[in-house]
Amino acid sequence: MGQYRLLKKEECGIDSSFWNHYIEVVKKEVIPYQWNILNDNITDSEPSHAIDNFRIAAGEMKGNFYGQVFQDSDVYKWLEAAGNILLIKRDEELERKADAIIDIIEKAQEDDGYLDTYFTIEEPDKKWTDLLECHELYCAGHFIESAVSYYRATKKYKILDIASRLADHLCTVFGPEEGKNHGYPGHQEIELALVRLYECTGKEEYLNLARFFLDTRGTDDFFEEEFDRRGQISFWNKAKQKEPNIRYNQFSYKTYNQFHLPVRQQTEAAGHAVRAVYMYTAMADIASLTGDKELFGACRTLWNDIVNKQMYITGGIGSTHSGEAFTAAYDLPNDTNYSETCASIGLMFFAQRMLKTEVDRTYADVMEQALYNTVLGGMNYEGNRFFYVNPLEVVPENCLGNPERHHIKPVRQKWFACACCPPNIARTIPDLWEYIYTAGENTAYVHLFMGSQADINLDSGRLSIKQTTMYPWTNKIRMEVESDTQEFMTLAVRIPKWCGSYRVMINGSEADIPVRENGYIFIRDDFSSQTVIDMELEMKPKLMASNRNIHYNAQKAAIVRGPLVYCIEEADNGKYLSELSILADSPLEEKVMDQFGGAVMIQGKGVRKVNKTDAGELYTPYAAEEYKTDIRAVPYFLWNNREAGEMQVWIRTQ
Amino acid sequence: MGQYRLLKKEECGIDSSFWNHYIEVVKKEVIPYQWNILNDNITDSEPSHAIDNFRIAAGEMKGNFYGQVFQDSDVYKWLEAAGNILLIKRDEELERKADAIIDIIEKAQEDDGYLDTYFTIEEPDKKWTDLLECHELYCAGHFIESAVSYYRATKKYKILDIASRLADHLCTVFGPEEGKNHGYPGHQEIELALVRLYECTGKEEYLNLARFFLDTRGTDDFFEEEFDRRGQISFWNKAKQKEPNIRYNQFSYKTYNQFHLPVRQQTEAAGHAVRAVYMYTAMADIASLTGDKELFGACRTLWNDIVNKQMYITGGIGSTHSGEAFTAAYDLPNDTNYSETCASIGLMFFAQRMLKTEVDRTYADVMEQALYNTVLGGMNYEGNRFFYVNPLEVVPENCLGNPERHHIKPVRQKWFACACCPPNIARTIPDLWEYIYTAGENTAYVHLFMGSQADINLDSGRLSIKQTTMYPWTNKIRMEVESDTQEFMTLAVRIPKWCGSYRVMINGSEADIPVRENGYIFIRDDFSSQTVIDMELEMKPKLMASNRNIHYNAQKAAIVRGPLVYCIEEADNGKYLSELSILADSPLEEKVMDQFGGAVMIQGKGVRKVNKTDAGELYTPYAAEEYKTDIRAVPYFLWNNREAGEMQVWIRTQ
Repeated sequence: MGQYRLLKKEECGIDSSFWNHYIEVVKKEVIPYQWNILNDNITDSEPSHAIDNFRIAAGEMKGNFYGQVFQDSDVYKWLEAAGNILLIKRDEELERKADAIIDIIEKAQEDDGYLDTYFTIEEPDKKWTDLLECHELYCAGHFIESAVSYYRATKKYKILDIASRLADHLCTVFGPEEGKNHGYPGHQEIELALVRLYECTGKEEYLNLARFFLDTRGTDDFFEEEFDRRGQISFWNKAKQKEPNIRYNQFSYKTYNQFHLPVRQQTEAAGHAVRAVYMYTAMADIASLTGDKELFGACRTLWNDIVNKQMYITGGIGSTHSGEAFTAAYDLPNDTNYSETCASIGLMFFAQRMLKTEVDRTYADVMEQALYNTVLGGMNYEGNRFFYVNPLEVVPENCLGNPERHHIKPVRQKWFACACCPPNIARTIPDLWEYIYTAGENTAYVHLFMGSQADINLDSGRLSIKQTTMYPWTNKIRMEVESDTQEFMTLAVRIPKWCGSYRVMINGSEADIPVRENGYIFIRDDFSSQTVIDMELEMKPKLMASNRNIHYNAQKAAIVRGPLVYCIEEADNGKYLSELSILADSPLEEKVMDQFGGAVMIQGKGVRKVNKTDAGELYTPYAAEEYKTDIRAVPYFLWNNREAGEMQVWIRTQ
Repeated sequence: MGQYRLLKKEECGIDSSFWNHYIEVVKKEVIPYQWNILNDNITDSEPSHAIDNFRIAAGEMKGNFYGQVFQDSDVYKWLEAAGNILLIKRDEELERKADAIIDIIEKAQEDDGYLDTYFTIEEPDKKWTDLLECHELYCAGHFIESAVSYYRATKKYKILDIASRLADHLCTVFGPEEGKNHGYPGHQEIELALVRLYECTGKEEYLNLARFFLDTRGTDDFFEEEFDRRGQISFWNKAKQKEPNIRYNQFSYKTYNQFHLPVRQQTEAAGHAVRAVYMYTAMADIASLTGDKELFGACRTLWNDIVNKQMYITGGIGSTHSGEAFTAAYDLPNDTNYSETCASIGLMFFAQRMLKTEVDRTYADVMEQALYNTVLGGMNYEGNRFFYVNPLEVVPENCLGNPERHHIKPVRQKWFACACCPPNIARTIPDLWEYIYTAGENTAYVHLFMGSQADINLDSGRLSIKQTTMYPWTNKIRMEVESDTQEFMTLAVRIPKWCGSYRVMINGSEADIPVRENGYIFIRDDFSSQTVIDMELEMKPKLMASNRNIHYNAQKAAIVRGPLVYCIEEADNGKYLSELSILADSPLEEKVMDQFGGAVMIQGKGVRKVNKTDAGELYTPYAAEEYKTDIRAVPYFLWNNREAGEMQVWIRTQ
């Protein structure tokens, strides 16, 4: 086990035509829209009341709490997104809005540090009595994350102080000591947040509390006892239940919240997917911070289970809407899945934290796969419409009429009653600079290919890397590398698994550098004068097949190009996509679209098979005819950016 | 509109090698097993307590009600099955058991005629206060049906008296008159039962009450008002609800129970499938009895909607487990569907009642399709294992792990907590003699091909038909026809839609008889001396295709032979059925199996496509290889009669 660190903001900034657009969109569209949502300035959307909840808790307004019990987290995610945007570039107006909210939050915080408007307003005597369902620790976690981000951007202490008071309060309430609450959250999030706060403040209590939450989980009957203490009443429907969790009883209720086993003994990703990956993220973080090999081993086992058995080719996870959850190995249906945007964001977190302990391209490969497909696919190009659920196959009529597909929206939505995904995208995109590189002793690791300027402080000195690329649309990456010392340093660059071959040119000369076992090439040099490294990653479009245990994808292929998974849409191929087959031996051609910043479309040859005797009856004798046709595919993340209609990732082959 | 009647038992008896087996199995296996279930003699099954509930209500035992609120109906369905078996052949031991139960039921009936053990035992002051959820009228209906059947078999009046007292009680409680309860049932069933009781007793009040229930339904806010009167509390979870139905809120709660519109204005089959078809059955029955053309028109519209838009090729209906319900036109997924056995039985009822008004082969075709596929498929060959849900595609691993498929049992079950389907099969199979023929003035209609002896009283005299056939295994049907008069009579025989061509030989001479518009051939003769009619229905195996709007079945075909739909099973084709394609142009050969009474298996040519690079990873570059293979298919109704494994009806074609 090694130790690698993420960069600080002053060490890295993105400057990429591809990503600048999305960062701009988050700033110009998503954050202002969310601000208006939170403040109930949008008339054709579900009321949020989130800011008003804080005003009421702060005593500035009269009224009742309204919204989900975790409504506060919408505000925190907005604040975190704002912090992440401000970290890139200060903005007075945005800062003024954020500061105003922080003032209200400060007033809503109780004297002992407690912060949760639902309980402050509605049930002040019920605090911490329903950790399983009531999301207090989840909200606390999101607040702490927002505080770290906002503080990092502005160096204003107020929000960090609120967060520290809250975290200190948690330390007095929770812990192994006698008299303290020995519980842990129903929705994990606080663990990774406490680690971030520890990294920001250096206060070990926070790290210890995070560890306590993880290590206690699944070792006792806490949730059962809590359930008995609250009279076996469910928060959700106020009725008596047989088991602590009422809503997802096709799973063991323990599995749904990942307390079926002590976390170190968990070997299969299970239950609610977002909770799972948030928890694994904290586990990986703590393993790296404490050098806990056993914990890291558990993380690696869970990682492998996800990546080798439970992940969509789009980096989506969570095969069922029922409990927004993992199901079973190889159960990856395309038209009933959930694959929540937030879960893929959580998978990126998990991957990033794994890279703090171990450099292996599996982490960066999957991080990239999730980012360029499901995460980016969760938002349209303009940043004003979203997907919460990310199916791989959609027939709009079947989604509208069938409860198994009812969660699948064939058209991007403005907002959601449970509004986790859009703000989660908004906080993640401006934070991508934190995913490109990690730093070892005298080695800089390049995990992602994004136009950026990095000035990385290694043990012997500073290594500057200016990355220039039109990735993912083109396969060329230029890195201009220079150090401020004569010492030898290493630049380790990921060669993605999808890349069949690669070229490396150093100062114009072809270099034959083998890829190491971990999937990286190592370029060792003193870099004291500028070194220009030009890389070309083979990224011709190709067809991918599934493991045969994914029965849903038998005899089908997905088109990929580099990190991008493609899909066919009705807009380009007409209705009845399932009648199409792609001719596997025919060439796949690239075409630059005149939309979406030079996105690359892929065109192949195929056939459409239609039954001749189709005559308005349900079933008629088989008499199929085939017609030749082109098959046109667009990047999955761009689907439903033009017109509504059918969509399909896995295409039948001939 | 014509008027056709079903036969009486003395007019028809089955003698068929195919059906004798199943009738015997119902008698020797199903009825005794169910008897033991009802009496809690089976230790490895869910306790039933159904007979004990009656004993408690009868004052013979102390205790509480246990089981579903509609647990009584299990006893009634057993009684009806027993009645139907006894009608074929009296059996002292069975009759003694039935009489003993009837004695207890009589004591459990209250003085005013009320009969429902749940309310008698647990909530005597809550009778008729929750018609939506509590199934009192449903149970009453099943009791009445059992009474008609048992009385018909034994001519013992006791059970008919109990039923009449109950029905009389219903007439005093319900109806349009002021002061009466203006409600109607949440689960339809009483309507068709009251019609049967009317036909048995001639008492018009029963017919009128059935009409009242139907004609009032959906015209008022009865269920909303009832919901308010009971404090908006759900029976199921005892908690306050927003809407009368809590459990299936992806549908409008009105649609789920078919009160979204007055029944005559309903044009699309919607909501809970069994409730729907039981209601349509009563509508068709009443339309025929009263000559109500408008009502019959509504029935025909609903029939066409089912048959042309919402029915599986197996005669299954109800595309979703969520509410056991219809979904939308052409939404017929194969691996998440419900297609409850009871719903297909209800579809047979509906078809049979439509034939009372209109002779058209659509009714008998669908009746046959449902019977030989889904209904018969609901029970194994030995009669001791059952399916409640009838999928068209099963991968066992995916059913166990995924909530969307959790209702799909890959292995036949001994019994079910909600035990409607096995007893429903048990009452239907011995009653099949009632589906073969109908009688018009001087015409006998042959709807089904089953070895049987019929002696049908037509207006001019008695027409005897001895049908001999190995159908559905062979395509030859012999009818030896003779009348006891010199008058001309007509024998009208259905030529099924699946039949491409047919031959008719009359006394050994080929006769060229055209099929009429309604799908029947008419053979007019005086039949005064025995006439031997030999028919051959072309029933070569063939492939069927789906309407293109059933996206799930694109590029796929189903193998059919006569009325039978075939499926491929892992037992004959190995694992990974979805890798197989059938070569559409290759011949389909018939092979007689040495199991299941000479069942016919079908063998075709196909290919298996496997990806060469499959190496334990989820996704690898596409490099498919095809292997030639045979494709072996067995009748769908026989699936999972040998070993557990995958099953698939719709097969990819090449």
